[in-house]
Amino acid sequence: MTAPLRIAIAGLGTVGAGTIKLLQVHAADLARRCERPIEIAAVSARDRNRGRGIDVSPYRWHDDPLALASLKDVDVVVELIGGAEGPARKLIETAIAQGRHVVTANKALLAHHGTALARAAEAKGVSLGYEAAVAGGIPIIKTLREGLAANRIERVYGILNGTCNYILTTMRQTGREFTDVLADAQRLGYAEADPSFDVDGIDASHKLAILAGVAFGCEVDIANVHVEGIRNVSAVDIAFAEELGFRIKLLGIARLTSHGIEQRVHACMVALGTPIAHVEGVHNAIVTEGDFVGQNLCEGRGAGAGPTASAVVSDLIDIARGRSQPTFCVPATELKKLPAAPMTRHRGAYYIRLMVVDKPGVIADVAAALRDEEVSMESMLQRARSPGEAVPVVLTTHDTEEAAMRRALKRITALGSVVEPPHMIRIESL
Amino acid sequence: MTAPLRIAIAGLGTVGAGTIKLLQVHAADLARRCERPIEIAAVSARDRNRGRGIDVSPYRWHDDPLALASLKDVDVVVELIGGAEGPARKLIETAIAQGRHVVTANKALLAHHGTALARAAEAKGVSLGYEAAVAGGIPIIKTLREGLAANRIERVYGILNGTCNYILTTMRQTGREFTDVLADAQRLGYAEADPSFDVDGIDASHKLAILAGVAFGCEVDIANVHVEGIRNVSAVDIAFAEELGFRIKLLGIARLTSHGIEQRVHACMVALGTPIAHVEGVHNAIVTEGDFVGQNLCEGRGAGAGPTASAVVSDLIDIARGRSQPTFCVPATELKKLPAAPMTRHRGAYYIRLMVVDKPGVIADVAAALRDEEVSMESMLQRARSPGEAVPVVLTTHDTEEAAMRRALKRITALGSVVEPPHMIRIESL
Repeated sequence: MTAPLRIAIAGLGTVGAGTIKLLQVHAADLARRCERPIEIAAVSARDRNRGRGIDVSPYRWHDDPLALASLKDVDVVVELIGGAEGPARKLIETAIAQGRHVVTANKALLAHHGTALARAAEAKGVSLGYEAAVAGGIPIIKTLREGLAANRIERVYGILNGTCNYILTTMRQTGREFTDVLADAQRLGYAEADPSFDVDGIDASHKLAILAGVAFGCEVDIANVHVEGIRNVSAVDIAFAEELGFRIKLLGIARLTSHGIEQRVHACMVALGTPIAHVEGVHNAIVTEGDFVGQNLCEGRGAGAGPTASAVVSDLIDIARGRSQPTFCVPATELKKLPAAPMTRHRGAYYIRLMVVDKPGVIADVAAALRDEEVSMESMLQRARSPGEAVPVVLTTHDTEEAAMRRALKRITALGSVVEPPHMIRIESL
Repeated sequence: MTAPLRIAIAGLGTVGAGTIKLLQVHAADLARRCERPIEIAAVSARDRNRGRGIDVSPYRWHDDPLALASLKDVDVVVELIGGAEGPARKLIETAIAQGRHVVTANKALLAHHGTALARAAEAKGVSLGYEAAVAGGIPIIKTLREGLAANRIERVYGILNGTCNYILTTMRQTGREFTDVLADAQRLGYAEADPSFDVDGIDASHKLAILAGVAFGCEVDIANVHVEGIRNVSAVDIAFAEELGFRIKLLGIARLTSHGIEQRVHACMVALGTPIAHVEGVHNAIVTEGDFVGQNLCEGRGAGAGPTASAVVSDLIDIARGRSQPTFCVPATELKKLPAAPMTRHRGAYYIRLMVVDKPGVIADVAAALRDEEVSMESMLQRARSPGEAVPVVLTTHDTEEAAMRRALKRITALGSVVEPPHMIRIESL
């Protein structure tokens, strides 16, 4: 058995504590799998005395996380502080500069600085592991970068935020509204006190940008992800979706198009016959499409101490065994800078919900607005009747360009009989 | 860029041709990912002139596959001949003895000789890649052995045979009977002329035995897999399953129990709320349960030229990059010989369908037979009424031991009013 792999862990929150627990519980098995032990040499966190459910007393303590980057007896720095800037970034940059391998769960940092960090790590000949940054326990980075590496990946998409999927699932199951279900999710600990990071799609956009980098071998381009959240999805949309044979999911989608890469996070109508439609609750799932392998789906727990620790330690095992790979599927020096496809060029079908005054001629006006922008209607539903009052009308379109759809919506909004701005949800062809 | 990885391919059927096509189409991308080219140095097959849709003329041809094992200019022998014995086995054994890496799609061979081959390969310091042997394009071997390697795996199960899943899916969708749907599947090329290997569960048992070895770090033990196929599943069972909230799937299940490892392949009733219930058609899917990560599901195409080639080449990429790992998650010298849990010790719930004469007292007799073996009934359904004639009766039990269930079925079979042997399908708690 060769020398132990010595690691230093910065950040002892839920994930840090979970990682230490896993390394303690499975020490013997890990040593067998790695053919060398993994040893925790040092740790750092804000508060030494916080109760964490694990014993950290055997490990050397540093108040300053940055100190971990330069320890002589450490091979790997595990960064579990979080945040795209500040101490996390400084720690990782310094650790790489000092020739230490790095393992991190930090999606914001990877989304914003992934390309630069990959180049720095590869120039130094060290690994930058970030399996835990995307979809928690699902080993999607390894799957894309190694398991499916024989393919040209054409599209990758998925349910990348468990909080949103929990909210949408619960809305469907209970018929309740977003704000109501969000409040419950906050009480249950599935959503943060400030839910914006999750429900506005930001968290999912970080993960998507990383996935796109791995899938397409391109620079991580968080600036060009089109991001919408789920605040505008209402119970009535979910009910109409079921009637139309769809389920509403917040998806992150990255795709190679002839205009460049399309990266977008928004609520989608997905057909009930697709596997992703059945991914429920806090689960995450990612679908990859490769030219030889076809579609693959990976589903599992996208967050939490156990799943995230599983991902962190899988990176440590790779490093312990000396397994190396390019950070984003091709050497960082060869990562392409792909043009971003503008969202206005997106083509797809649309679901539109209007509140209109129930009187003759309204649908004709709406249909004319669509026709004038050459948007072709696929179906129309007006379930309620209430002459002279506002009633919901739902329509779906055939594939059209987003720019045309937006112009049509502008025309529709201007109609006197349309009493609130239209609600639009994209129908995703999966 | 370092020296090319030189490979020799034995067997140019669907998978062999697909592998060559992939290596040709993606040569430049693969060289970038591996940081060295993958070159085909030699090939061997039975018929040099068969049309394969690919150009094999650039490659040195050998009539004898065994010759590939000793070529001086070859790093990896890719065995795509198939079969647990004969030339495939001889080729792999010789290639390992000659210090060549081996990549194979041969599940029968791995199931029967996996442990010995792993020991031979590791003793020689060469890789034995077999990603393509289990579930085609789904990178489940890498996922278990590396992605989830931080976990103790407690159970692994899945839909491991696309032919059976296609037949069961079609039976449900059309209400037609097994033999009828099988004939269609044969016409469509989804089933072989001799379907036994698929529909009797043999193919799935090979894959399950391999999965169990990787999941639990134990010797591959094909001899102790309990195997049943799907010939006994009838349209009426599928209809009752839907009514009871289940779907019928042929699953392979491996589980650590206090009696040893349980390995079994048989038709199962799975609850509609589980992800595996929604895996349809020819797709395969595997669910893994790890102590830290929880449940993960991987779904994709389990067979075919493209998916299998994707798996073969992923192993080649690992070898090209010098990534090594124990063949079955721990070094082969440390693979445990786990005791096999006898099927009679299996505990679970059961679905039983009887054909009984419709007359008073019959259900009481059946209930008494169950009671006498301490099997607790959970539900009973007799939909049709036809006094004096044979009608189907369905019952489900609470969890019970298989031995008790079998004794109860023996009692039930002996009842005068039960007109054909009972049909039993295990209800799987997932």
